[in-house]
Amino acid sequence: MEGAMEDHGERRNMVGNDIESMMEGRGNEMDGDYYYASMVSDTEKGIRQPLLLRKRTMNTTSQIAVVGANACPIESLDYEIVENDLIKEDWRSMKKVQIFQYVFLKWTLALLIGLATGTVGFFNNLAVENIAGFKFVLTNNLMLEHRYLLAFVAFASCNLVLAAAAAALCAYGAPAAAGSGIPEVKAYLNGIDAHSILAPSTLFVKIFGSILGVSAGFVVGKEGPMVHTGACIANLLGQGGSRKYHLTCRWLRYFKSDRDRRDLITCGAAAGVAGAFRAPVGGVLFALEEAASWWRSALLWRTFFTTAVVAVVLRGFIGYCRTGKCGLFGKGGLIMFDVSSGVTTYNSADLVAVIVLGVIGGVFGSLYNFFVDKILRTYSIVNEKGAPFKILLAVTISLLTSCCSYGIPWFGTCTPCPSNIQEQCPAIGQSGNYKNFQCPPGHYNDLASLFLNTNENAIRNLFSSGTNNEFYISTLFIFFASVYCLGLITYGIAIPSGLFIPVILAGASYGRIVGTLLGSFTDLNAGLFAVLGAASFLGGTMRMTVSLCVILLELTNNLLMLPLVMLVLLISKTVADCFNKGVYDQIVKLKGLPYLEAHAEPYMRHMVAGDVVSGPLITFSGVEKVGNIIHALKMTGHNGFPVVDEPPFTYAPELVGLVLRSHLLVLLKGKKFTKEREPTRLSEVLQRFGAFDFAKAGSGKGMKLEDLDILEEEMELYVDLHPIANKSPYTVVETMSLAKAAVLFRELGLRHLLVVPKTPGRHPIVGILTRHDFMAEHVLGLFPHLMPHKKA
Amino acid sequence: MEGAMEDHGERRNMVGNDIESMMEGRGNEMDGDYYYASMVSDTEKGIRQPLLLRKRTMNTTSQIAVVGANACPIESLDYEIVENDLIKEDWRSMKKVQIFQYVFLKWTLALLIGLATGTVGFFNNLAVENIAGFKFVLTNNLMLEHRYLLAFVAFASCNLVLAAAAAALCAYGAPAAAGSGIPEVKAYLNGIDAHSILAPSTLFVKIFGSILGVSAGFVVGKEGPMVHTGACIANLLGQGGSRKYHLTCRWLRYFKSDRDRRDLITCGAAAGVAGAFRAPVGGVLFALEEAASWWRSALLWRTFFTTAVVAVVLRGFIGYCRTGKCGLFGKGGLIMFDVSSGVTTYNSADLVAVIVLGVIGGVFGSLYNFFVDKILRTYSIVNEKGAPFKILLAVTISLLTSCCSYGIPWFGTCTPCPSNIQEQCPAIGQSGNYKNFQCPPGHYNDLASLFLNTNENAIRNLFSSGTNNEFYISTLFIFFASVYCLGLITYGIAIPSGLFIPVILAGASYGRIVGTLLGSFTDLNAGLFAVLGAASFLGGTMRMTVSLCVILLELTNNLLMLPLVMLVLLISKTVADCFNKGVYDQIVKLKGLPYLEAHAEPYMRHMVAGDVVSGPLITFSGVEKVGNIIHALKMTGHNGFPVVDEPPFTYAPELVGLVLRSHLLVLLKGKKFTKEREPTRLSEVLQRFGAFDFAKAGSGKGMKLEDLDILEEEMELYVDLHPIANKSPYTVVETMSLAKAAVLFRELGLRHLLVVPKTPGRHPIVGILTRHDFMAEHVLGLFPHLMPHKKA
Repeated sequence: MEGAMEDHGERRNMVGNDIESMMEGRGNEMDGDYYYASMVSDTEKGIRQPLLLRKRTMNTTSQIAVVGANACPIESLDYEIVENDLIKEDWRSMKKVQIFQYVFLKWTLALLIGLATGTVGFFNNLAVENIAGFKFVLTNNLMLEHRYLLAFVAFASCNLVLAAAAAALCAYGAPAAAGSGIPEVKAYLNGIDAHSILAPSTLFVKIFGSILGVSAGFVVGKEGPMVHTGACIANLLGQGGSRKYHLTCRWLRYFKSDRDRRDLITCGAAAGVAGAFRAPVGGVLFALEEAASWWRSALLWRTFFTTAVVAVVLRGFIGYCRTGKCGLFGKGGLIMFDVSSGVTTYNSADLVAVIVLGVIGGVFGSLYNFFVDKILRTYSIVNEKGAPFKILLAVTISLLTSCCSYGIPWFGTCTPCPSNIQEQCPAIGQSGNYKNFQCPPGHYNDLASLFLNTNENAIRNLFSSGTNNEFYISTLFIFFASVYCLGLITYGIAIPSGLFIPVILAGASYGRIVGTLLGSFTDLNAGLFAVLGAASFLGGTMRMTVSLCVILLELTNNLLMLPLVMLVLLISKTVADCFNKGVYDQIVKLKGLPYLEAHAEPYMRHMVAGDVVSGPLITFSGVEKVGNIIHALKMTGHNGFPVVDEPPFTYAPELVGLVLRSHLLVLLKGKKFTKEREPTRLSEVLQRFGAFDFAKAGSGKGMKLEDLDILEEEMELYVDLHPIANKSPYTVVETMSLAKAAVLFRELGLRHLLVVPKTPGRHPIVGILTRHDFMAEHVLGLFPHLMPHKKA
Repeated sequence: MEGAMEDHGERRNMVGNDIESMMEGRGNEMDGDYYYASMVSDTEKGIRQPLLLRKRTMNTTSQIAVVGANACPIESLDYEIVENDLIKEDWRSMKKVQIFQYVFLKWTLALLIGLATGTVGFFNNLAVENIAGFKFVLTNNLMLEHRYLLAFVAFASCNLVLAAAAAALCAYGAPAAAGSGIPEVKAYLNGIDAHSILAPSTLFVKIFGSILGVSAGFVVGKEGPMVHTGACIANLLGQGGSRKYHLTCRWLRYFKSDRDRRDLITCGAAAGVAGAFRAPVGGVLFALEEAASWWRSALLWRTFFTTAVVAVVLRGFIGYCRTGKCGLFGKGGLIMFDVSSGVTTYNSADLVAVIVLGVIGGVFGSLYNFFVDKILRTYSIVNEKGAPFKILLAVTISLLTSCCSYGIPWFGTCTPCPSNIQEQCPAIGQSGNYKNFQCPPGHYNDLASLFLNTNENAIRNLFSSGTNNEFYISTLFIFFASVYCLGLITYGIAIPSGLFIPVILAGASYGRIVGTLLGSFTDLNAGLFAVLGAASFLGGTMRMTVSLCVILLELTNNLLMLPLVMLVLLISKTVADCFNKGVYDQIVKLKGLPYLEAHAEPYMRHMVAGDVVSGPLITFSGVEKVGNIIHALKMTGHNGFPVVDEPPFTYAPELVGLVLRSHLLVLLKGKKFTKEREPTRLSEVLQRFGAFDFAKAGSGKGMKLEDLDILEEEMELYVDLHPIANKSPYTVVETMSLAKAAVLFRELGLRHLLVVPKTPGRHPIVGILTRHDFMAEHVLGLFPHLMPHKKA
């Protein structure tokens, strides 16, 4: 696949998916890479127009489809058990100690992922609090000296430098590290491997870019990046060191399969959430509900172990920091936004308010998703122009954010400190509810308490109880509007940026508005309404349920709020689902990643598997000429080739199985060729190859066609494909409805699904279904009359 | 299947599974019911001995296999999409309004399940607290008058009457209602339908039997029964009223499939846990981790909705009861055992203690499971003798329990009330920590505080904080030993009995022992150690992780304990898994239910699909003679028959598809016969049948062979099977490893998996794999040399 991609370097800006479409004719000189543009409607015009034409159409229209596209090749993952002779031999010789080693390693890796992610999560926090703390101390000191303009210059230039650094790191170091990362992890766990998305460089940029970006005062969170970081760590540990250290290599060969990597990365994603929110159970549920496409009970347990390790690591570090050795690190414990002190009796007026909040959350949430989509499309035009433009965009947004943070509080009025509060007023240092800003002593500026603060402290202030009348309604309105807009325009710039924190900020502010408006009608305090508001907006944008519920529970430590949080989440999700998809699903689609939904679309019931495959396809004989194989590999991007034994070797054409491109390359590299068209004995093959020679290499690390050095005279020799052919690929009959085939394909996580003829006597294979063939764009392109009415 | 079962009424005591083994010869006059005895090793002796012989062997040995067996036929569920012409026609004509109706109904049913289960959960609680409360008030009053013997007589006879009533209800009303019910629900959700397990009579007995049993002072809980109750309610709502009320019938036809019922019952199981523990999120996770075998994101959301409804219902009722209108109903809120007041800073000594607790929990837990197994086997001998013996056993255990509860406290010493406590001492009424018992005023008897109390109050006392020195170590030891043994001997008697409460009681007592022993070495109070002990023992017996964690969190409302609870659960599960399986899995196996594990066994890699099927099998022609069909249906218990078109109708024998027994019966009932062997036009068939005529009926409600009245002359006529044949059943090639076929079978939830030949030109079908063929007992019976070493 990689080879094909490199031949077409000029297309690298496109959303390039190497969907293995094997349906092209033998003579077709185009490679099999199918440049797939999810939002291009041109493809949907022609009914079964030749594939070449369709491709061209897409090439011309690809520019409008390129939104946040990764400039790296994409490969489907394969979770099928490949049953070839070599692997069967390996199974036969497998000893108990090897199984033990495998299990031991699995748990060791889970432990290591937990340790590493927990440590990174803590140091991220530590670095942000120290950098941002320094910035605020500097600004505050200048303000105390009434040097307001200098204070702004200091504040804005700190932000600017940090923002520029983050953007530069991202633009030059690893463009894939921009954004949340959750959509990419989600896509990986669905079986779509964008090669650089989990690379070590991405990990590095994600960690430091996130620290810089959050410190720069952007309205972004570290939660999404932490999920991505966890996934990168898991990927690195799963295949790491295999080149440099031979010791680990021997062990880690057990993990050379897509299935094992998937498990590790699921653990990593869960550890990321656990590290970001200090919510171990929430992390498990996030991985389960939002990230993972396949799940099993054994994985639940391992994920749980990983997040438990994260919790222990975080607790250890936080305990150490209590001794005061961590600089400006806050005094918070494992619970980030504790609201357990709030009284939680609620009456029927509260229930009505909760329903209203749910509806508001649903509407605002779906609007947010709509705008995110639009803004990402707009930004991609800028970002495509090159790294300097990316940095320029980030710097512009940074300046705007600085202006808001420092400028808007000047419109606030100074309020005398209330007398009956336990907190210090005005607050000293960076945290605290009551910010002095420009006010005389004994007064506070409520706008500054929200704007001139870290995002986490602003959330803490909004959630705080016993401060019902701290904020004016107008303040909350202004803050909501600013945060909503800043959150929208910030996501999409070239820095690692999480969506959770902006959404919680905006939600909490309108929640607090509702709480303040209700005033004495309600038994709940305004801080709890802010929690409910945050829940409603999270539900409206992200559309998760159980995991958000548990994450909020672990964030706020108020179990009695649980029924209300459940209610508000259900309502906001229901309302928002009427309008559009969840924000992560939307970004996955926007990036053109061919995500397989859990359910087949209704129109798939009305077509059969044979409808979407188009023959003839490239097949090999059981013993094939080397030249033919090389030619097929060179001329197509196909990843799997059916092997068919034909007379006189068999009575009738007979399907031997499926060979994978990567296996063919290894086999050819071994040069076990024969002069005559005759099978090789398995024992001879086993002398040269072991099953692990064919194990799946990590992302982008597999052998390439260029690595082969086949001599001209070897082209005329033969090679036996039987030992490496998967003898029992999953098959469906051509008359099976596409919906039913999709269930098989999705549930088993396949890369190739062979379609066999209904009636005997025909060629034993009709075609191959790949991920691409189940995509709505492809199917509806072939059969436009099936298109849902809203699009027609 | 039912017909076959009734022909063999004398076998009804056996573990009868109607596994559809279709591998018998045409001439074999035995029915296809395979009497499957999971622990019978005789079957493992003969290598591929004739099936008839194997069956006989098992009949003779079945007596030792019958343990807690349900005397009802068992049927596999079928989650495959049947694609026959009638259903495709139905898809084509489906309107949008129908899809809307379906979605609306789905959510309405989820709402109703939540409402009903919440209500039942509350009334169960209410009834128990009033009945048990009355009993304790009576006993206490007599004791205050120093009429100790009379007090015992009153106490014991109350218990005895309640126990006898519970056992009689269970023995005569619905034997399937005995026990926890979780194993059966788990089996149902794995695709094993024991017909009476979700029947209305079972529901009735489960509700009232559980109330009586818990009130009778047995060491049993209401949690397992609530799960079963929730599942029964879901089943009833899903198919209920369809006979009596034609209105609901028209709507509920949408739910006439195993897949929809599975979803409903998953919601019901979750609602049950939510109702029992007042733990809505814990309920969802329980259903996900322990109960369900298949899961998808959409179901998560619906389950979440159901448990939210349960929480709202419970909160409403509890709020109402606060006004004092519920008799002796306690003052507890949504959190059953609140320990949030305990301080939760812990040091390294605590961590060591937690690890010790985990190991203890693992050892005791696996021992518990071992003994449960032994005791169930012993009891089954008694229970099999008939209903009177069941009642006798229950009465005996009740007397023993009464003696313990009332007798053991007499060995306790009277302790003066501590001065520095906030609670009343000695306690007045049934609840409270400090029970007076026989002591003078101002003193309490700590043994009585645990023994002469409801189980829930005993747990509350063990979990209580600020009472570190309330219980002597000896008291806790005695209580632990008694509860451990009573819990063991009580499970298995013919009453609905949950395992959670006994396990929590025993775990909490040894947890408190450890806490008391540590004394000043620890920062945690003894009550929190009791919580950790309960967690460790739960982990050791039930082997759940995340769901137990969340349930305990929702029960105790102490988020800061979460890392410790996670740690203790991980350790206890790991330790216990070294010895045996979880208690529910063990009971499933003991009952001989053919449970499909998520993973294929390693030895399955070494055999292929063709190895375990044994031909020839019964196939029908596309247009088949009525007599042949009737004969096949009568002589076999097979549930699916391949349909093969043969020359001269086709060029070569060609697989049309698979017809189901239930569909054949409906087709024959319709009497659309022809004189000649010729296909019928689809339009003609459609005039007589709609797709819903073939919809799957509820458990045991389908048409039976005896319902047909085929005349002798009709036997010679022909019927066209094409319209009802599933044209695209899932198939595997005979050389596929059994492990790989098992993945397909399990992931897609199939009932039949067709095995096709590798080479062309042979008969188009080799055999059919059913659930039974993947069972270790069957496979190892065919290939004893593959048996794991520990058994060999």
